[in-house]
Amino acid sequence: MSSEFGKNIKLSIFGESHGEAVGCVIDGMPAGIKLDIDKIYVDMKRRAPGQDKSATPRLEKDIPHILSGVLDNVTTGAPLAMIIENTNTKSGDYSNLMTVPRPSHSDYPAYVKYEGNNDIRGGGHFSGRLTAPLVFAGAVAKQVLEKKGVTIGAHIAKIGDVRDKMFDKNNISSELLNSLSSVPFSTISDDAQNKMRDYIERTRLKQDSVGGVIECAAVGLPVGVGANIFSTVEGHLSSIIFGIPAVKGIEFGAGFDFADMSGSQANDAYCIKDGKIALKTNNNGGVLGGMTTGAPLVLSVAFKPTPSISQPQQSVNLRTMEEETLVIKGRHDPCIVPRALPVVEAAVAFGLLDMMM
Amino acid sequence: MSSEFGKNIKLSIFGESHGEAVGCVIDGMPAGIKLDIDKIYVDMKRRAPGQDKSATPRLEKDIPHILSGVLDNVTTGAPLAMIIENTNTKSGDYSNLMTVPRPSHSDYPAYVKYEGNNDIRGGGHFSGRLTAPLVFAGAVAKQVLEKKGVTIGAHIAKIGDVRDKMFDKNNISSELLNSLSSVPFSTISDDAQNKMRDYIERTRLKQDSVGGVIECAAVGLPVGVGANIFSTVEGHLSSIIFGIPAVKGIEFGAGFDFADMSGSQANDAYCIKDGKIALKTNNNGGVLGGMTTGAPLVLSVAFKPTPSISQPQQSVNLRTMEEETLVIKGRHDPCIVPRALPVVEAAVAFGLLDMMM
Amino acid sequence: MSSEFGKNIKLSIFGESHGEAVGCVIDGMPAGIKLDIDKIYVDMKRRAPGQDKSATPRLEKDIPHILSGVLDNVTTGAPLAMIIENTNTKSGDYSNLMTVPRPSHSDYPAYVKYEGNNDIRGGGHFSGRLTAPLVFAGAVAKQVLEKKGVTIGAHIAKIGDVRDKMFDKNNISSELLNSLSSVPFSTISDDAQNKMRDYIERTRLKQDSVGGVIECAAVGLPVGVGANIFSTVEGHLSSIIFGIPAVKGIEFGAGFDFADMSGSQANDAYCIKDGKIALKTNNNGGVLGGMTTGAPLVLSVAFKPTPSISQPQQSVNLRTMEEETLVIKGRHDPCIVPRALPVVEAAVAFGLLDMMM
Amino acid sequence: MSSEFGKNIKLSIFGESHGEAVGCVIDGMPAGIKLDIDKIYVDMKRRAPGQDKSATPRLEKDIPHILSGVLDNVTTGAPLAMIIENTNTKSGDYSNLMTVPRPSHSDYPAYVKYEGNNDIRGGGHFSGRLTAPLVFAGAVAKQVLEKKGVTIGAHIAKIGDVRDKMFDKNNISSELLNSLSSVPFSTISDDAQNKMRDYIERTRLKQDSVGGVIECAAVGLPVGVGANIFSTVEGHLSSIIFGIPAVKGIEFGAGFDFADMSGSQANDAYCIKDGKIALKTNNNGGVLGGMTTGAPLVLSVAFKPTPSISQPQQSVNLRTMEEETLVIKGRHDPCIVPRALPVVEAAVAFGLLDMMM
Repeated sequence: MSSEFGKNIKLSIFGESHGEAVGCVIDGMPAGIKLDIDKIYVDMKRRAPGQDKSATPRLEKDIPHILSGVLDNVTTGAPLAMIIENTNTKSGDYSNLMTVPRPSHSDYPAYVKYEGNNDIRGGGHFSGRLTAPLVFAGAVAKQVLEKKGVTIGAHIAKIGDVRDKMFDKNNISSELLNSLSSVPFSTISDDAQNKMRDYIERTRLKQDSVGGVIECAAVGLPVGVGANIFSTVEGHLSSIIFGIPAVKGIEFGAGFDFADMSGSQANDAYCIKDGKIALKTNNNGGVLGGMTTGAPLVLSVAFKPTPSISQPQQSVNLRTMEEETLVIKGRHDPCIVPRALPVVEAAVAFGLLDMMM
Repeated sequence: MSSEFGKNIKLSIFGESHGEAVGCVIDGMPAGIKLDIDKIYVDMKRRAPGQDKSATPRLEKDIPHILSGVLDNVTTGAPLAMIIENTNTKSGDYSNLMTVPRPSHSDYPAYVKYEGNNDIRGGGHFSGRLTAPLVFAGAVAKQVLEKKGVTIGAHIAKIGDVRDKMFDKNNISSELLNSLSSVPFSTISDDAQNKMRDYIERTRLKQDSVGGVIECAAVGLPVGVGANIFSTVEGHLSSIIFGIPAVKGIEFGAGFDFADMSGSQANDAYCIKDGKIALKTNNNGGVLGGMTTGAPLVLSVAFKPTPSISQPQQSVNLRTMEEETLVIKGRHDPCIVPRALPVVEAAVAFGLLDMMM
Repeated sequence: MSSEFGKNIKLSIFGESHGEAVGCVIDGMPAGIKLDIDKIYVDMKRRAPGQDKSATPRLEKDIPHILSGVLDNVTTGAPLAMIIENTNTKSGDYSNLMTVPRPSHSDYPAYVKYEGNNDIRGGGHFSGRLTAPLVFAGAVAKQVLEKKGVTIGAHIAKIGDVRDKMFDKNNISSELLNSLSSVPFSTISDDAQNKMRDYIERTRLKQDSVGGVIECAAVGLPVGVGANIFSTVEGHLSSIIFGIPAVKGIEFGAGFDFADMSGSQANDAYCIKDGKIALKTNNNGGVLGGMTTGAPLVLSVAFKPTPSISQPQQSVNLRTMEEETLVIKGRHDPCIVPRALPVVEAAVAFGLLDMMM
Repeated sequence: MSSEFGKNIKLSIFGESHGEAVGCVIDGMPAGIKLDIDKIYVDMKRRAPGQDKSATPRLEKDIPHILSGVLDNVTTGAPLAMIIENTNTKSGDYSNLMTVPRPSHSDYPAYVKYEGNNDIRGGGHFSGRLTAPLVFAGAVAKQVLEKKGVTIGAHIAKIGDVRDKMFDKNNISSELLNSLSSVPFSTISDDAQNKMRDYIERTRLKQDSVGGVIECAAVGLPVGVGANIFSTVEGHLSSIIFGIPAVKGIEFGAGFDFADMSGSQANDAYCIKDGKIALKTNNNGGVLGGMTTGAPLVLSVAFKPTPSISQPQQSVNLRTMEEETLVIKGRHDPCIVPRALPVVEAAVAFGLLDMMM
């Protein structure tokens, strides 16, 4: 089992939270793509902590350093390797976690699987910090997709009981997606954003955390990306999106709401619009038979609450095999969802690019 | 893009609904597994149409014919190839679909992708009939998993607004799963089952269809199956489960409900039970950091309503590029969910086996 | 480890010599290719036993039966599955081999690896009969390549001490290759062919066998197929060619003769010919840096003598762990090389097609 | 097509000769392996230029810098990333090669394939320098294999017309292999070594280069590594070995000499030795049916002469499309074979490890 994704263009992610560096290799990049490095930085910053009051005040300098595959900002076709050096690492904070696994973190199964050899400092290879190279790869993928006319963007659909407006599934503009994907805490409704921020702040004061849902869309996709059976758009994107820590559910189009619908409500009829075949509705979220339909691709991703909370929690001591109360120190995001926005976009971008090459 | 799944044990599915045969090759089977062919038939029958009043009265004889890889019912370690011949195929029913794509089916994107060359008779390679070889492969995988102490079973969690009792996520017996996986229309509550059957029957009379949700569980898994980043249990299972036609959403454990939860509610505390490490709750559905925790693996899968309904629907003529009203003839399941039960179990079984080898 | 090949178009081979059938699945076929079935039969026949006096008189009817992926002889883009039923199987001949492994056959390592579960009748999955589906797949691949302007053909370069004329590496016509690939015992020189036939006949009379070398070429390839490091044309073709039983060596261009050459002799200078870049010599056999150069691809493949000979041989009894003299009954090719010609062409064709898609 | 190898443990190689760094990611490393860093340095040094009079006097400091996957010299099970910074790069030497491809180098097909975007400085991603990360990965693999009882070593079998003693294929000690793999210019016969050094020196004085053959062996392998058809030991090792620049041929055991042998000479009879099954000869080089037999694995690899020679060569100008005489400046190895010894060992080690996991 591996930290690698992709069939036509491969993404290999490496590094540990408190090791020397995190990074990635993108193998199979097309040659001749001029990269806009500033645009990559925008996504890196959206993911980085401390960009927004809703996130942890830790300061990581997520500066991607390209080692190969790019000459004068143009891809050469050779593997693109990138590293981000780790600078601000306080391993002391995590010392007692060696023996007492944090609830709802990977600590316990990782301990069993790697027989205690895995690097647990800051979560090691399991840390959310490993999403930084994914965001980098996604930002690169977005630029390749942009040349193919594809635009991707996401917003926070829900945090706790606060809901944003949802995408009008059959009518999403690239302008809307571009505006969503250029800011750190993107929502369609400003009012929802304010309420979400309040909700998160209240949660923080309670020394607690909260989950949420991100809705992501891609427009400009040609008809016929993906295939049925084991190469579906849904399955392929899921296999990369579930690589984002804390993701626990994915749905496409109406998703779980389909269970309540009748076929006559759910089916997306065809029509002719501007001389072309179009869909009258888009309950299927832009995918039929595993293939894109030309309508916007729309999916929602559920995140669980940040497992690290300041409240005392019950755990066990792996050495003494006795129950033990655990208090996690350090500062943690009360809600990971805002910082996960560019990560979801990145996973969707890289997954789509892989299928389009 | 391909009709193949798996990293360590590969499943290649082939065939068309109205072609000579559907079948599969399982490459990487361990040698020396004695197969119980009758048990395989049980699952094949659960998926076959006409087994239950809720399903289509068409009669397919889904008799798997093993061509290779098995000698005296024992696997040899060579690729296991199996075919099911197609016998009862009425291609005439589908003749007008050549030019008018059925809404919410794969017809339109397949037509574009394969430039009109794909076999559209009965849905061709996109037909639900292709789940028959998946059920076969899953039934084989279940028997290998059984030897490793793993049991899998599923029930219908929801059809329309009728809900079954849900699994008690932290307390699921292999007996319950075995009983669920041996009958065609499995629910935990008999009362829910009756109401679901009523709901489906009423839907049929309205010439309509309905979606639903299947909840599936696996118990007996060791700690540490899967890995984080791009080898998560969730991502790997999703990539095969979305290969089942009509699946539009997947969630693990509390899934989308996590969005409403606080970390203090959601986190699964550890305890010592019978001298071993155990979880006090199982909101994470048996997976942390992409790896199994030893608690039951619990996931839910959303199905959209059967796209084929008898009511007239609006579509377009691909040749004249004019709008056209389509009436789909033939008999179709008003609800695909009951027949999908063994298919979900099969996908989960094969996906888990692949990760455990 | 698996009986599957390919990155972009996958070939999965299954079956046992004395089982129900051998066959294959080609997953990833382009749609819309009109197949010339008669041409496929030509290659099947060239491989089949009994086509030529130099080969075994057993009569196998290698009639490929296409199950899926083709409609009215045109590929649909769905997986192409094909089976060849086994009809003329005399398992009795092999009964004593269960316990006494045949020297230089796979019997012993297969027995250890599969713990005695592998089907040993006629060699089971290890039989040369499994090259029949490879020839089928190669014949299909040749037809796809033909549309891209690529022609493949092979001749027997050497049997024992009898040598054929070798290809003029920088000057090979598609006409020559087409003529070589349409007959069963192809050589460039008729005289060499006669001597080879004599050599084989004399070997047969001595109850012995002999090895040989096949030289294969492909012309019409564009510049830049393949890539360096782990996607070289040489490495990719080798990984499929070594799948042919009895192959023990591969060389490209001057191959092992390079060891004796100086750079000033070996280097292929560039020139301008008809306004285009061309090579003055082709010692590199059409590949540089793992990529095709536009010059003919030329490779040689070494085959060991047929391991099955009628002379008594020393072996061991796997049960009693005592040494035992083994006499292999039945009829076997004194030289496998002539029948291997279409197999080498097939492997080269499928390997190239995989890299060109 | 990609710079990545492996099914169970993956090796992704990146970097350019004159870029910032070359390096690799090893994904799928087992956890808990204590690495002997000094031993890794031995192999890195054997490959590095300037270690031996026979090689180029350029000084590269090939110091591998591990970024992840190792804690206190013990593998964690997370991806092992390593970089070697490039320090001594004189790009000026290569400036005129932009337009005039060097004969027998990858320049021309790379130019066509990547449409002029590939980094050509020092050969870019096609440089022999990319074998440094392969040697690193192989040195790591050797240490994992050592724990499994497997030892690997190689010697120069031939340079020009000078031949070393060959391995006694059925009787190779781990001591011999260890002694060969610990020095830079390893031969079995000291006399042959002296003659080879003379041959190379004479070649250098003629401003020419020469090819050669490396023979490599592995002992201690269990029976049954690899599988037949498309997972053969021969095919799998070839697919990585041909990734070494200048390799043009591979043979296992008697290889091309099999063509001259009769089955009665070639077949390796079985016997009982010390109560165990053994082979009386090892013409098959330790592989039957694609699987290891327990006898030493023995293979030979042919290298072409270094393409870079100081003599004027004929080439073409890619812009003017006119013929042009090229003089390659800078210093180059007159024979790449000595420095390729640890690279061949590395490729064999990594390929075997991948098959054994």
